[in-house]
Amino acid sequence: MWRELQPIGRHPGTGGYRRFAWGGADLECRDWFREQAEARGLVYELDRNGNQWAWLGDPAAGDAVVTGSHLDSVPDGGAFDGPLGVVSSFAALDELRARGVRFTKPLGIVNFGDEEGARFGLACVGSRLSAGQLTVDQAHRLTDADGVTLPRAMEAAGYDPEAIGPDRERLARIGAFVELHVEQGRALDITGDRVGVASAIWPHGRWRFDFRGEANHAGTTRLADRHDPMLSYAESVLAARREARLAGAVATFGKISVEPNGVNAIPSLVRGWLDSRAADQATLDTVVDGIERAAREYAEAQGVRLDVVRESFTPVVEFDHALRDEIARILGADEDAELKVPVLGTGAGHDAGILSGTVPTAMLFVRNPTGVSHSPAEYAAEDDCVAGVTALADVLEGLARR
Amino acid sequence: MWRELQPIGRHPGTGGYRRFAWGGADLECRDWFREQAEARGLVYELDRNGNQWAWLGDPAAGDAVVTGSHLDSVPDGGAFDGPLGVVSSFAALDELRARGVRFTKPLGIVNFGDEEGARFGLACVGSRLSAGQLTVDQAHRLTDADGVTLPRAMEAAGYDPEAIGPDRERLARIGAFVELHVEQGRALDITGDRVGVASAIWPHGRWRFDFRGEANHAGTTRLADRHDPMLSYAESVLAARREARLAGAVATFGKISVEPNGVNAIPSLVRGWLDSRAADQATLDTVVDGIERAAREYAEAQGVRLDVVRESFTPVVEFDHALRDEIARILGADEDAELKVPVLGTGAGHDAGILSGTVPTAMLFVRNPTGVSHSPAEYAAEDDCVAGVTALADVLEGLARR
Repeated sequence: MWRELQPIGRHPGTGGYRRFAWGGADLECRDWFREQAEARGLVYELDRNGNQWAWLGDPAAGDAVVTGSHLDSVPDGGAFDGPLGVVSSFAALDELRARGVRFTKPLGIVNFGDEEGARFGLACVGSRLSAGQLTVDQAHRLTDADGVTLPRAMEAAGYDPEAIGPDRERLARIGAFVELHVEQGRALDITGDRVGVASAIWPHGRWRFDFRGEANHAGTTRLADRHDPMLSYAESVLAARREARLAGAVATFGKISVEPNGVNAIPSLVRGWLDSRAADQATLDTVVDGIERAAREYAEAQGVRLDVVRESFTPVVEFDHALRDEIARILGADEDAELKVPVLGTGAGHDAGILSGTVPTAMLFVRNPTGVSHSPAEYAAEDDCVAGVTALADVLEGLARR
Repeated sequence: MWRELQPIGRHPGTGGYRRFAWGGADLECRDWFREQAEARGLVYELDRNGNQWAWLGDPAAGDAVVTGSHLDSVPDGGAFDGPLGVVSSFAALDELRARGVRFTKPLGIVNFGDEEGARFGLACVGSRLSAGQLTVDQAHRLTDADGVTLPRAMEAAGYDPEAIGPDRERLARIGAFVELHVEQGRALDITGDRVGVASAIWPHGRWRFDFRGEANHAGTTRLADRHDPMLSYAESVLAARREARLAGAVATFGKISVEPNGVNAIPSLVRGWLDSRAADQATLDTVVDGIERAAREYAEAQGVRLDVVRESFTPVVEFDHALRDEIARILGADEDAELKVPVLGTGAGHDAGILSGTVPTAMLFVRNPTGVSHSPAEYAAEDDCVAGVTALADVLEGLARR
């Protein structure tokens, strides 16, 4: 399966994947999904929001056990984020069939559309639409960098943008959803485990810091006469690292925009975006408040005006405790005594996080030895991927028997 | 004169001037120059490099006394940088005629083309071409942000780009060149003088700092596992300010480029441009070496690679000492006992700096109470501008009598 999927949308220069929603590489990946479903005699289903489903048994019976992930990528992303969960789902089904397991519940495999949001700027569009967390109006207004709207892009790909919208009946058929994903950190590498279970998705948000100073000549303006917003920005970048380290959280200034951005001009405006996440809301508040307070002090000392705007925020997602405990029990009871199952939080958003408000949901993580993610260097060892498939098969078998 | 020039190329939103070489506003300013020359019965001359001249007397006689500046602007520049020198030149001529002064030498007023380099990225194109400091090949390759080359822009404005090139015969006619300019700092405000004389243009350069780290997920990558080049950049911005302050120089990071520049991505590359200037070469070397050393330490500590490239460098320009002393003597001998003439260095480049290698050259500065330059807030008081015209008239009269 990997071999067929590997070349699709891979950029020859960077080695990274560029599989953007409704673009050519994404559509090839979607064709691949359909072929995999049909090759296994599964019933292929395309829902109104562009999510693909493959069914063993009749989903209308309800209480279905569903697994899957996504096939699209960030710009120059790695091979595993998304595809590992879809490939592992088909592989786990193959293993269960080889074990001769007979299912009493319907089993589904899903590929959610536009998870990364690389093209339209909003993540998890497919699952958000189905769960009613994104209105049709909002979705219709999404526009990519070339000015193409989501409806236009769907139409160009042969889909009907007028049909999109909440699809709770379809989600109501699901009794449990389990998403397997490559870990996007090194927690499992540190504990020495191949596979882990997610406890929660950290609350996270994005804040825009606008530092406004005074444009001036970089060659002739005395240091004492300057109101240089680049200095306040620089001090805030360092404050963010400091506050995050003290709190055991993460905080990142990864995006910046400067005016006039000239080599010989003191900037009039430095706009920096802060991304911060923590294990709980109180910690996140402490970190962001600390950064903002420090930034205000620096700005004031330099005669720079600071405005902070929260651009987005996602509260903590606690995965279903009963399902999580059951999965831990299933995996802990495995014959392989070495397979412990650490429970860990994650800083990244997922379709599983979106669905968790509607459906009992869980996540499995596969070890990532370098922790690198959203980069061509993203990696998981073959042995760990196989352990992931085995664990997923065990979980599906256990859940289907409940 | 001011009234006619003021609305040309002024942006209604910012209040700043956008007079870019060979664009509509620049051409209107050039028409204005020609009209001013003709209204005074001066002989108008356009040279091969797009510099405009207005002559009283026959320049072929040689040993001419020339004054002037430029009429183009930086993006959203102020009203004074450039135009004050040209307007004051015409006003000084009017005053000398009112005084009944008769000239034994030819007197010229010049508007140098494309001084700011706002469109093609290189400053002082008109004077550089004439002085042979820019080859025709180099000039033909200059391209603006829209991909329009300098030859195309000149053609579109009705000029012949094939005629450009060194024009030493024309410059050889000049016995002394004096450029009046609004000060781009607060030295005169601090000494309490209306007018000053330039001693030198500080040596200055531009260095590109490429900080290369590792792109990664901003939500899931542990702080300890990061190689975030934004941190090394931020520390270097602060180091630049510190080193400059200790040395009495200036150092500015005003331009930045980040990859991938995504809110949820630790950058793989932060490219920052350093502009630094100091009163002498040794001080400048000390400052830049200090910044680079600090940046390397920070980068190394964070597992970030640093490459530093010097993109441009201009050595110190010492203005002609004899001419400077003569001007100081002329102004010091003025009846207005309050008119002292401080001699001061400047961090900005000027056409006078380009010409100083070919022609005895001097500069007069008019007080700038805020020091603001290259900004709509750039300002000089009317009284100070009048004092500038008087001083320039005195200097021209004195030099023409030598």
